[in-house]
This record gives sequence, structure tokens and C-alpha cells, in this order.
Amino acid sequence: MGHCPQDDRGGPDPHLGRYAARTAGMTASEIRALFAVASRPEVVSLAGGMPHLAALPLEELAAQSARIIAEEGLTALQYASAHGLPLLREQICEVMALEGVAARPDDVVVTVGSQMGLDLVARLFCDPGDVVVAEGPSYVGALGSFAAYQAEVVHVPVDGHGLVPDGLRAALRQARNAGRRVKLLYTVPNFHNPSGVTLAAGRRAEVLEICRASGVLVVEDNPYGLLGFDGRVRPALHSLDPENVVYLGSFSKTFAPGLRVGWVLAPHPVREKLVLAAESAMLCPPTLNQMIVSRYLATQDWRGRIESFREIYRERRDAMLDALEEYLPPGCTWTEPDGGFYVWVKVPEGVDTKAMLPRAVAARVAYAPGTGFYTNGLGSRRMRLSYCYPTPERIREGVRRLAAVLEAEPALAHASAAAGPGRTAGRRALAPEAV
Amino acid sequence: MGHCPQDDRGGPDPHLGRYAARTAGMTASEIRALFAVASRPEVVSLAGGMPHLAALPLEELAAQSARIIAEEGLTALQYASAHGLPLLREQICEVMALEGVAARPDDVVVTVGSQMGLDLVARLFCDPGDVVVAEGPSYVGALGSFAAYQAEVVHVPVDGHGLVPDGLRAALRQARNAGRRVKLLYTVPNFHNPSGVTLAAGRRAEVLEICRASGVLVVEDNPYGLLGFDGRVRPALHSLDPENVVYLGSFSKTFAPGLRVGWVLAPHPVREKLVLAAESAMLCPPTLNQMIVSRYLATQDWRGRIESFREIYRERRDAMLDALEEYLPPGCTWTEPDGGFYVWVKVPEGVDTKAMLPRAVAARVAYAPGTGFYTNGLGSRRMRLSYCYPTPERIREGVRRLAAVLEAEPALAHASAAAGPGRTAGRRALAPEAV
Repeated sequence: MGHCPQDDRGGPDPHLGRYAARTAGMTASEIRALFAVASRPEVVSLAGGMPHLAALPLEELAAQSARIIAEEGLTALQYASAHGLPLLREQICEVMALEGVAARPDDVVVTVGSQMGLDLVARLFCDPGDVVVAEGPSYVGALGSFAAYQAEVVHVPVDGHGLVPDGLRAALRQARNAGRRVKLLYTVPNFHNPSGVTLAAGRRAEVLEICRASGVLVVEDNPYGLLGFDGRVRPALHSLDPENVVYLGSFSKTFAPGLRVGWVLAPHPVREKLVLAAESAMLCPPTLNQMIVSRYLATQDWRGRIESFREIYRERRDAMLDALEEYLPPGCTWTEPDGGFYVWVKVPEGVDTKAMLPRAVAARVAYAPGTGFYTNGLGSRRMRLSYCYPTPERIREGVRRLAAVLEAEPALAHASAAAGPGRTAGRRALAPEAV
Repeated sequence: MGHCPQDDRGGPDPHLGRYAARTAGMTASEIRALFAVASRPEVVSLAGGMPHLAALPLEELAAQSARIIAEEGLTALQYASAHGLPLLREQICEVMALEGVAARPDDVVVTVGSQMGLDLVARLFCDPGDVVVAEGPSYVGALGSFAAYQAEVVHVPVDGHGLVPDGLRAALRQARNAGRRVKLLYTVPNFHNPSGVTLAAGRRAEVLEICRASGVLVVEDNPYGLLGFDGRVRPALHSLDPENVVYLGSFSKTFAPGLRVGWVLAPHPVREKLVLAAESAMLCPPTLNQMIVSRYLATQDWRGRIESFREIYRERRDAMLDALEEYLPPGCTWTEPDGGFYVWVKVPEGVDTKAMLPRAVAARVAYAPGTGFYTNGLGSRRMRLSYCYPTPERIREGVRRLAAVLEAEPALAHASAAAGPGRTAGRRALAPEAV
């Protein structure tokens, strides 16, 4: 894709000379290409990040949605403001209050999923050539948004306690010395996508202070914050420095992604520009969807539902960690997430997860290869495994298949033959310094 | 707004030095500011473009939506592809077939309203400094999208038969001579927003030929195409030159804007890039909303419903034209739309519609002042009046109030005193050359 001169029907693209320069950065993500594969029922997909929806009260949601359309349809089906419905913005403030965020509804902008929040923030702040610092690895959708505005993402090392403050300092220093302008720190502090790690409490103020001192705005992307398996909710970065943090939130992981309702909380002058940018991007977010979410929050035990989601995901995380321990060949290590959807696996030297993927799919298991989560070519020995969607049984089966594929890779088959039979004993959680 | 150094809470914006250059073009539209005013019940708003929804079968829509959530909720509430649901894309091709468009479902991309289609097209094609030619006046939301990507809109004259081909040639020649790169013609060929005029059949091939010869891609924005009052559907520009036209469609004017379901039909290589851009902008359009529209198209008499919408809007158009004729002071002229939502009014010399607006609002009538529809400062003697939302009685009352405000403007009060009583006889439709 990108500036590829051929389209998939074999002819040259007659529009080739017309595209904007920013399209050079638009390439099909490795994860996107996987969606088609993952949808085949015989494949155990550990690739996607689709949440588990079966616990939702569909009959009740159906009845509520019907009442909204029947009784308030002339509002629900009509245009509304680009800012978002006032009642929903108030309720969003109540949700964020769980994380210690003190927000005014006026400073919240409702978006079409938090992906649109990301896009609008990139649009507001990124000139071509600007630098965004972000965890390495980082959420693939964020890398796409920053690329769309021709910003360069510079990765900062991550360990078992999250973003490494000294790594952040070094990255900022290096960019400054190179005459680059760093606009944003993009971070997923809780149950990071894809690494699964969480920014340690002791590092949070330090990271914020580094950014403030360097004039770098912090973009806190927090879709998983309420999905911690210990039931503890970590204070949002926003709660520690509201004037220098833009917070991205979402109902996709705690309610329903198909409604596409997310939000941005931003310092007031930034919020004003966000509304203008949102209006230019799509006039207004869908009114009906906002009313469905608002009604759900007002009438359902959404906190209780989140607790049950936590239980479900914790059980699946456990199933995956147990299966990794049981099946994966020596030399593999992985993170142990305290919440969220993802485990980040390191494979032995000589294995390339992107090259291995077709063999995995042939063995009816799919994962997200690591290189898609970096802009600098790293990640070939990493893969992201998602435990959010398959059942524990399917997770075990998927990991079993994956292990067989790994063991058949030439690098491992040789090593195994050289070392003979037998496994390293004990847990092989990834060492903190080795994410 | 834009680079304004003060926010509305009176403090300086600490983020001022951080915004991207493109934010300089982000300003609150004059029309947007009117929404707050227009929502006060005592004001007759002739300002907004909200469609009339009272004719929708709300009970039936409620029941259908409930069934979708109850029976297919795990799909409707889940992520889907950025491309849009396959069934809906097939149905969209059937809708466009009414306009002579022969399209493959694969070449359709579902968007969050056609505004997002506009945004994505601008994103794909517009580098900073590129030129987009467009009718003068032009749809304010399109001007916003092009400004967001730092393209410059050059207006082409419009007369009673739509875009003037010689004006288009002159604009392209002038841009070329100035060393500018013209990327797109943006046009609303049917029942134009805001002017109400329709591109004559005899001009369509000519406009397309001019663009093709100049290497300019045509963006055909056609939200009103099925709302012609004579029941005749004009062939889309796309049907005449499919490889050089990107078509933007919408269910906002023929079904329900609050669902935010629009689409783009594009030549295949452009379509591929559009999906990547859409994924970066919002991952995927709302699944539930696509299923509601799809079910509506599959089970309801949507063609019959569009016919009844036509009748409703024709009656309102007639009410507005009659009231303009009866009440507006001498020296005012206007267009006579054959479909769509808008009448474009020219007021006598000395009247400034933007300056007059607060006096109109005080007299409990609102309209959209003309300058918002131009990037070049023109339009101060123009206003857009919408007849889509108020009842015929309210339209008459609104025009009556507007006439009183106009007559009290100093320029008219003086002229009237000089000329003495009496009105010009006969219809005062705007001459074709004078849009």
C-alpha cells in the first residue's frame, strides 16, 4: 500500500501523483490484515483485542434502546453538538472520578471511540516532523494516527514497572540535541497495549515532572484502567497534573465497542480546539449511541458489570499464563499483566514472529507479531497474545498450538536437538528489564 | 479561536506554542454559533439544516433496533471492519443505482456521516498550499475540512444553472499560472448548499471534461440528490466519469442524521487508502448504526418514505418562496430551488447580513449569514434560509419577522423614505447570473 504503484486489480493507480505526502505513512497494519484470518472459526485468535460481550444484558439493552427511539427518537436520530450530550459528559466525569480525576463536564469531548480522540489530538498538536515519544512497544492505532499527521514516534524503553523515566529523559535529550521538537508523550499507563505492564505508582509523578519541565504535553490513553485484576483502581496521570495531561477514555472495553463512544478530557483551551476539530471531522458523534450509553450508566449497575468483566478477564489471564508455563518451549519469556487484555511474549533468538505467522495460521492459531508495535523495526522476537476474547479452554488450545509451531521453527528445533529433552523448571515471567 | 491568546475563562492558553500550524485555520463557524440561539423555542430558525424527522416510523424503528440488539447484539455491539458492513455496502450501491451509478460494494467505504468522508478525502489528497476549487458560495463544513488540511479553497462562480464552466476554466488557468497545484473540484451538483441551484444537465459533461483535462479529481457531494421536487433523479456526476469522481453520500437527509451513517464511493486504489485513513481516524464506524440502516433499507419502503419527504420539503419551499414574495422589501432577490433545503437570498446594498444577525435574533428569527460560505470575504449581502425544519406556518412567520428587520436596517429605511411607499410587482427570483 502507501505509494505502491499497483493496486490489487493489477493496474497502475491513475491517481498516484495526486496523493498528499502524508499518505506515504498510511500502510495496512499487520494486525488489520489478521482480522480476516482471525474470523475463521477453526483458528484460535490470540491476535485481536475484541472485548468479551457475552456478559452484557442484551434483552435489557434492547428494551432501553427501543424506548429511546420510540420516546425520544426525534432527538436520538437528529444532529446534535460536536461537543457531545451534556448529560453523558456529566456521567463521564463520574466514571473518571473513580480514578481520582476531578473534571468539569465542559472539558470533556465525546468522540467516535478513543481512536478518534487520538486522531484529533494528533491533528491539533502534530506538525510534520514533530516528535512524539511513546512506550516501545506502543499501541498500533496510535502509531497510525501520529503517522497520519507525519509526526515521528520515538520509542522509550519499558520494563516491568512501565515506562523507564531515565529512558524518557534520554529520549527527550537526544531529540533536543538533534534539534527536534517533541510535542507529546503518548502513554498507556495501565495494563499497557501491547506489553501488559503498568506504570508503577512511584514513577508517575516523575514521568509527569519530566514532561512538564520539557514542555511536553502528556496524552494518557486509559481504556483498561478499570480492568485491574486486584480490583484496585490506580489514580490517573490526569489526577496528578490536570493542566498538562490530555486524557483519552473509552466505553469500548467496559461496555460495548460497536457503539463507538469514547471521550477526551483536556485543559479548557485545548478542549475548545478539539470541538472545532471534531466538528470538521464528523459534525457530531452519533446521538443515539450517546443516549444508549447514558441510559446504561444511569440505570444499570455498570460498576458491578465491570467487576464481573474483571473476573472473566482474570480467569482468562490465568488460563493463558498457566498454558504459557506448561507449553511454551525453553527460552520463551513473557509479561504477567495485572489487568487489561494482553501478554507480551519474547521468543528465542533466531525466531522471527512475523515470518512465523503464516505457519501459526496454518496450525490454526493467530497472534499479533511484535514489529507492528514499533516504528523502528524492533519487535521481531516479540508477539502480543490477547486473552480477552477466547474462552479459557480455547486459550489453552491456542497456546498449545502456538508452542508446537515454535518448537518446529528451525532455530528451536536445532537448539532442542542440541540440548536434548527436558525443560527449564519454574515460572518464566519476563524479567523487568527485558520487556 | 484559532491562535487567539485568551481562552474564554480569561486566562492565557499555556499550550499556545504547541499547536500544529493547521489549527490556525480552525475557527468557530458562524453557523455553529447559531445552533445555541436557534434552539430557543421562541426563535424561528431558518439557520440550521436539520432534516424533518417527524415522518419516520419511530415505533417500527424502535422494534427493529431492539431485535438487532437482542438477537445480534454480540455483533452489533462489537468492533467491525473500517470498510463498513458488506450487506450495507451492497444496499448503498442499490441506493446509488437510482442516480445511474454503477458501483461495486467493495469500492464503497462507510463513514461517520459524509462529513467524515469529506475529511478523509481531504486527508488523502490535500498537502498544505494545494488548491481546491469549489462553488462560491460553498458548503461551510467542506470549507472547514479543507482548511483543516491547509488547502486553499478558490471559489468558482455559480449562476442559476450551477457552477459556471467558463468560471471553472478561468480559476484553473489562474491557479496554474500562479504555480499552484489544484487537487480537487469540490461540488454539490444537486440542490446546492447554500445556493439551492442545480448543475444543469448540459453542463455536467463539460465540467467533468474540464477537470479530467486538467488532472483535477472531482469530489461530488450529493446528500440531497434524491430530494428533487419534480420527483426526477438527476444522473450523478459519478455515472458520467467513474474513474475521476469520488462520490460522497449520506443517509442524514433521507433517513436519520443522528445515526451518522454516510459513505464514499471511490476509484479502487483511492478506496484502499480511504479504508486505511478511516481506520486511523476511528477504527471502524459504529456497527449498531450500520445494522439499523441496513435493516431499514431491507424491510421498509424507503423509496416511498423519500417521496413523502419530497412532498413535505416542497410544501415548505413553496411556503418560503410565497412568504419571501409577500414580505421581503424591494431590492431583495433569491434563488428558487428545485429540491433540497435552502434558498439563497441577496439583500440590498448597504445591508450586511452578518451585522444584522443580532437584530434578527432579537426579533426572534435566525438565518445563516453569507460570509461563512466563502473563504474570500464575499457574501456580506447574502444569507441562507433553510425551509427544511420549521412548519410552513413558522416559515411564514419567520420570513415576516425577517422582512421587518430588513426594513428597519438604515440602508433600507432611508431608501424606502426616498422612494415612498409601494412595492415592485411580480416574482423577484434571483437572476441566473446573480447567485
